Amino acid sequence: LFLSLCLLVSCQQKSFVVVGDQFVKDGNPYTIVSGSFHYFRIHPSLWADRLQKAKDGGLNTIETYVAWNVHEPEEGQYNWEGLGDIEKFLTLCQKIGLLVIFRPTPYICAEWEGGGIPYWLLAKPDVAQRSSDPVFLSTHDRFLDEFIPRVSRFQYNLNGGPIIINQIENEYVYYGTDLGYIRYLKDAFESRGMNKVISIMCGAPSPKMAATSLSDTLRTINAGSDTNVTQLLSDWRSYQKEGPALVTEYYPGWLDHWSQPHQTRSLKDTAAKFAELLQNGISVNFYMYHGGTNFGFYNGANGDSTSDNNYFNLNYQPITTSYDYDAPLSEAGDPTPKYYAYREIIRKYVNNVGEEISTKIYPERTSRNYGSIQMTSSVRLLDPDTLSHLSLYNQPNQTNWPPTFEKNGQDYGFMLYRTRILPHIDDGLIDIQTIALRDRALIWSDGEYIGNISRNDGNNRVQINATLEGPIVDILVENMGRIGFWLGSQYDQKGIIRGVTADGNYVFNWTSWSLPLRDEDVISLNFTSQDVSSPHDHPTFYRAEFNVQGQPQNTYLLLDGWTKGQAWINGFNLGRYWPAVGPQKTLYVPNVVLKRGKNEIILLELHQFTAPVVQLVDEPILNGTIHTRW
Amino acid sequence: LFLSLCLLVSCQQKSFVVVGDQFVKDGNPYTIVSGSFHYFRIHPSLWADRLQKAKDGGLNTIETYVAWNVHEPEEGQYNWEGLGDIEKFLTLCQKIGLLVIFRPTPYICAEWEGGGIPYWLLAKPDVAQRSSDPVFLSTHDRFLDEFIPRVSRFQYNLNGGPIIINQIENEYVYYGTDLGYIRYLKDAFESRGMNKVISIMCGAPSPKMAATSLSDTLRTINAGSDTNVTQLLSDWRSYQKEGPALVTEYYPGWLDHWSQPHQTRSLKDTAAKFAELLQNGISVNFYMYHGGTNFGFYNGANGDSTSDNNYFNLNYQPITTSYDYDAPLSEAGDPTPKYYAYREIIRKYVNNVGEEISTKIYPERTSRNYGSIQMTSSVRLLDPDTLSHLSLYNQPNQTNWPPTFEKNGQDYGFMLYRTRILPHIDDGLIDIQTIALRDRALIWSDGEYIGNISRNDGNNRVQINATLEGPIVDILVENMGRIGFWLGSQYDQKGIIRGVTADGNYVFNWTSWSLPLRDEDVISLNFTSQDVSSPHDHPTFYRAEFNVQGQPQNTYLLLDGWTKGQAWINGFNLGRYWPAVGPQKTLYVPNVVLKRGKNEIILLELHQFTAPVVQLVDEPILNGTIHTRW
Repeated sequence: LFLSLCLLVSCQQKSFVVVGDQFVKDGNPYTIVSGSFHYFRIHPSLWADRLQKAKDGGLNTIETYVAWNVHEPEEGQYNWEGLGDIEKFLTLCQKIGLLVIFRPTPYICAEWEGGGIPYWLLAKPDVAQRSSDPVFLSTHDRFLDEFIPRVSRFQYNLNGGPIIINQIENEYVYYGTDLGYIRYLKDAFESRGMNKVISIMCGAPSPKMAATSLSDTLRTINAGSDTNVTQLLSDWRSYQKEGPALVTEYYPGWLDHWSQPHQTRSLKDTAAKFAELLQNGISVNFYMYHGGTNFGFYNGANGDSTSDNNYFNLNYQPITTSYDYDAPLSEAGDPTPKYYAYREIIRKYVNNVGEEISTKIYPERTSRNYGSIQMTSSVRLLDPDTLSHLSLYNQPNQTNWPPTFEKNGQDYGFMLYRTRILPHIDDGLIDIQTIALRDRALIWSDGEYIGNISRNDGNNRVQINATLEGPIVDILVENMGRIGFWLGSQYDQKGIIRGVTADGNYVFNWTSWSLPLRDEDVISLNFTSQDVSSPHDHPTFYRAEFNVQGQPQNTYLLLDGWTKGQAWINGFNLGRYWPAVGPQKTLYVPNVVLKRGKNEIILLELHQFTAPVVQLVDEPILNGTIHTRW
Repeated sequence: LFLSLCLLVSCQQKSFVVVGDQFVKDGNPYTIVSGSFHYFRIHPSLWADRLQKAKDGGLNTIETYVAWNVHEPEEGQYNWEGLGDIEKFLTLCQKIGLLVIFRPTPYICAEWEGGGIPYWLLAKPDVAQRSSDPVFLSTHDRFLDEFIPRVSRFQYNLNGGPIIINQIENEYVYYGTDLGYIRYLKDAFESRGMNKVISIMCGAPSPKMAATSLSDTLRTINAGSDTNVTQLLSDWRSYQKEGPALVTEYYPGWLDHWSQPHQTRSLKDTAAKFAELLQNGISVNFYMYHGGTNFGFYNGANGDSTSDNNYFNLNYQPITTSYDYDAPLSEAGDPTPKYYAYREIIRKYVNNVGEEISTKIYPERTSRNYGSIQMTSSVRLLDPDTLSHLSLYNQPNQTNWPPTFEKNGQDYGFMLYRTRILPHIDDGLIDIQTIALRDRALIWSDGEYIGNISRNDGNNRVQINATLEGPIVDILVENMGRIGFWLGSQYDQKGIIRGVTADGNYVFNWTSWSLPLRDEDVISLNFTSQDVSSPHDHPTFYRAEFNVQGQPQNTYLLLDGWTKGQAWINGFNLGRYWPAVGPQKTLYVPNVVLKRGKNEIILLELHQFTAPVVQLVDEPILNGTIHTRW
């Protein structure tokens, strides 16, 4: 099999093939030393800097996923600019001398919003994702027709481009059983002209790994510092009789969830295991080599379906804004001790023909403390003018039933639901309950803040006072990121999914505002009020200007004393902040977001703060105290 | 208000109006003594018999719901014959001299399938039932355009017909808050020419009762033998300042759920409270006066949403086939001691002008023991020929995802789902799980019976053996009746709602057979096998013939030693039997279903039996031992 692939491309110069149990590049055995690097988690102006550092760290290859929802944010509307400029990214890899393991659509997991599957597919509730569902396939095929022509020329075997390996699907072993779908995907990529060296990432070797993958692809594996390498190889060989071993995900660190302890992995253990993998002739990709940031609203979430036999995923675990991952290159692109330690191991064990390992030493830290910033103006989210300004359709929706985000054509952000409760439904306290809330809501009655609830609460209810006219209830629901891993992803629509009850009766006739909080809408808000006090739980945008002297440097926005919200600098959405639950206490601010001279910061604070002041500091805090009450 | 209604119809002869706190019929104060009688729960050939008995029991009025799903079984397809011949029913009431309290569509509860709402509305998942949802209203309006012209001529005030009161909606106090919807319904009925004396049944007086009803209707109340009448009246008067008191539902008995204890109410207590209500000048409707039977697949179910914040209604409680209700007229139409006791109370306390109370004494029991019947032939449900013969579209559906009944256009009965599990997904035991199963399923692997599971199990899973080719799994799902009460009714689609997993992975590519088990398909089955042994859990139809000598009498099908299934006599679907969980052990067989001479009985037994014999006995057993394992 692999031999035939070899023959196909003639094993001549500029070829990357599998021969027996080896990768063979340009006729010579080759060990891949790769690092995961999600272009969509790094500011595009910094791709070159980070790629060069990866190269200098001893890598010969970069691995990246392709996030479908970045490139097709609305059905039939494509994005190939900025964060979506995949051609620029591949060109940079080539220029810097890095090969590429390419892990494209449809599904990537990656703790990315929806696992990369566009939100608008969830508006088609009958579509079975990641299967031979005809709508799913044709929707993805249409995307491939736009996508492949932009990337097929970057193949090593055809044009000497950087892409040496294509992976189809991702960890399907944890989701489906539809081999026909996997076969269809392979054909869909190949028939459109993509490289034939195609791998499948399968996680740990198991009967299921073999059953849910194709035997004419290379099955690759996961490993961490606690992996028994001998056992792993022997298990894997029982399913993959020939072909080289590739650990597609070797974990130098781990991801963080809000309100759960910060994750790290020790340099010593991860370096030792890395060395052992190389000594065993295994090609390795670090997941992640440079983790980056879930800017904007792009973080995903994990769901634990074991708590809920109907997949409403009560145990919902959103990913933090930082995706630092305790990786060799920090979130700000600074080489860590792991970077140099791993490089020494590469130098010791990898000896590919014609490859030199850099000895460059980078400054330990590139970030700067810009001091305190005092907020100077504000505007409230629930002010009619603000709502109207931020609304997706410049006006609210009038519907009988509370709509989901997807039904309203809204991807991210918030939705405000408003209704008047029937007068006299109670003469005391009215019990308000949201059914299948996703994900977190603040509730007001006649403008008075009542409290907040979340999908993770067993009891999604508050009590409000009855009034003569019937109170007006406002429910501001935040989409905190769609589940990307496991079975629940099929059903993670956002908003209020199954209605609202008042004293046990369904409430109808809703006015709702879709508030995706687009950057251009946020920076054009009308900050008229000079009030920068801390209103108790009236979500408010705060604004300030601050000066940067000299060439801007990386910095971190420290939100000490603030509760939960979203932050923008110069119209760039830095992501969610939530120091009240931790563990992340600072937001990474890329140097390229700052300008010499006057800069603008805007915060949307949902709750309150101790002082209207933030700081730009030179050190991240990712391991702050955690609190479990959302 | 009520005075104006009175003036409108001139308070002359042949008028039924509200004047102050009284009902006034033809100019005289009037006490309604009514009994609930669901024409759709009584064989149409027996309506006249039962109505005459009700009249002879001292009633002056019959109350009936109108079940939308009986009259519009498929969207735009209407049924006004047989069980749906509402004109015949109203004509009989008039002929026998009974007035009618009319409680029409859209929603009736009544422990009827889906609360009377047609199943096909659940195939439109975005329609908010029982609200101003435009699709819900227009769908119902279209029904009214067909329905009202058939019944408007039966109004007392216009033509001296039997209908004196129309009720709009039913116990909306336990569901919604949309007063605009209630107002719309009132207008929808009135503008099409229905009587203006319109009531709303509200349950117990409460702020919510007042809030969820219209002040220009008569709010009516529920009572049972444990009701404090003084308190009830005083509570009710605080919301209903004027108008006569009408207890729309006075409970002489109660309903039964499968696997829960049989319900009765004592003659002594119910008679005493009935007397007290009449003494207080309250008009009364017995719910039920003659309960009847949930023939075919028409039983509804209750759901307890408190166990599940997302309304998947794990605590699903289907109603038994018998709706005897411990009512004054038994399921077989036999007057019980309550019948005569209540009649004496009516005679004592009710004195309407021109009304005589009968003194007729009926035979105590009209049923007969026809002895044992030995099954003589059989045919298996899962035989390919049987499946093909019974299939809704004469062929299976091929779909990626397991479809719901509603998506397949199937109302009732069973659906068989079949797929081959991916080979080698496991080398030992494969864990098969149905997600959001509704309601109960039997599972086979390569034709070998594995077990049964239900929506009420916490853990909807079985284990099967892995095989080289991958086992073929069959899942036979029974729709046991759609929830009609409370909030979960909005979401009670049937079948497998959220997929099937094998070892935690979704399974795709299903063949499914929609098996509604229409009477005509069942009687035309090809009973070729003489095998009437008890196969272990291979659902099998059994057939026998038996003779009836002389004029057929009522009888009861005793299913001692059988487990669970469905029974037909002469092509009439008697309903579900389930002696294995109880409390009901016999099925009522109306005399009109039997024929002189040769009769045919067909059983579909899902599991097994101790002997291939059933009996036709002369006494019902409704209070058998119960078992809670489904």
